Amino acid sequence: MKIAVNVHLKKGVLDPQGKAVHHALETLGFKNVENVRIGKQIILNLNTEDKEKAIQEAKKMADELLANPVIENYEIEVKE
Amino acid sequence: MKIAVNVHLKKGVLDPQGKAVHHALETLGFKNVENVRIGKQIILNLNTEDKEKAIQEAKKMADELLANPVIENYEIEVKE
Repeated sequence: MKIAVNVHLKKGVLDPQGKAVHHALETLGFKNVENVRIGKQIILNLNTEDKEKAIQEAKKMADELLANPVIENYEIEVKE
Repeated sequence: MKIAVNVHLKKGVLDPQGKAVHHALETLGFKNVENVRIGKQIILNLNTEDKEKAIQEAKKMADELLANPVIENYEIEVKE
């Protein structure tokens, strides 16, 4: 089972990488970009076919290792 | 309109960050992880309500700036 864990900086935490990309996009002529935030997408291939179990396990991994709860939020997405 | 551009290393391109996370997860006791790949998720807030136009524009941004076509693939996802 393929699970994506999307990790993003919390609202209010400065995202200099996103700011830089926003600026670069404007320089390239993309004028209607309001905001850019850059996060990580971690794709986990788990050796289980139980969707609920896979989500629970991914959540545990995110809490323990993948995300920093002080500055980051995450969301779990089932890919297939 | 909120668009996500998910950028990942192509199959066959070594992902040392993913390998390190895989190893760390095993050390933490998560035994049924088969594979971990780590990519970027870029969230774009575009000033348009036209879904097709937003997707086209995000694709152009990915081609021109966000992804490196030599080693990376990307997918576009409409968030809201």
